[in-house]
Amino acid sequence: MPDAECLKRLRSSDMGRIALVDHDVRPVIFPVNYFFDEGVIAFRTAPGAKLDLAPGAPACFEIDGWDPDSGIGWSVVAKGIAHDITEPRGAPTGRMRFWPVRPLAPGSREHWIGISVGEITGRWFRTPAPS
Amino acid sequence: MPDAECLKRLRSSDMGRIALVDHDVRPVIFPVNYFFDEGVIAFRTAPGAKLDLAPGAPACFEIDGWDPDSGIGWSVVAKGIAHDITEPRGAPTGRMRFWPVRPLAPGSREHWIGISVGEITGRWFRTPAPS
Repeated sequence: MPDAECLKRLRSSDMGRIALVDHDVRPVIFPVNYFFDEGVIAFRTAPGAKLDLAPGAPACFEIDGWDPDSGIGWSVVAKGIAHDITEPRGAPTGRMRFWPVRPLAPGSREHWIGISVGEITGRWFRTPAPS
Repeated sequence: MPDAECLKRLRSSDMGRIALVDHDVRPVIFPVNYFFDEGVIAFRTAPGAKLDLAPGAPACFEIDGWDPDSGIGWSVVAKGIAHDITEPRGAPTGRMRFWPVRPLAPGSREHWIGISVGEITGRWFRTPAPS
């Protein structure tokens, strides 16, 4: 999938999954509501595993979908370093605080994490019909 | 989400995402078509990153969905060690070769990987309306 198409799909989706590496070098996946702009995937989180593991660490982010008419599925995978952007450090992160990012779970989600996308790949695939 | 509900959802879905840790200790996510039974998440793959990284390694697997009527989303995350089950080593892996697992991409996908699920968690969440 061309880069422009990957970026378009990252911009037009709002639910994805972030993978991180935990302290025992095991992969962990978390679904997140996100917003993508200016090369940054931003999401909100409460104190917990994501906030513990993400800042300064490599992250992998994935979105996918499926067109029921054509039977064609697609996925976009973005990789980059995650940063704690809770405290704005300049104009870009200041602007991000106004992005429409809604946390998935109830409760306070006042920490913001941003993944600076360094690498992006997308592909189409033929999926089996959903059961 | 109760364990029984997690298992039911793992059994009734066929598309998910596996996260692994690469050689540079970075997380990587791959969408896969899978089949779950007997405590094992099985999928097929060609030689490449998944076959290179998965056998013997900790893996995290995720499925999720969304009910447009209720606005309620859900996710199930399963963790365990991945194994190369291409060559059946007994009755269970022999049976798995007959599971209805269809590879996502064209071409030969004659290697089988199974994740022995050791830990499973599921949750519901309220999602934003899709854009």
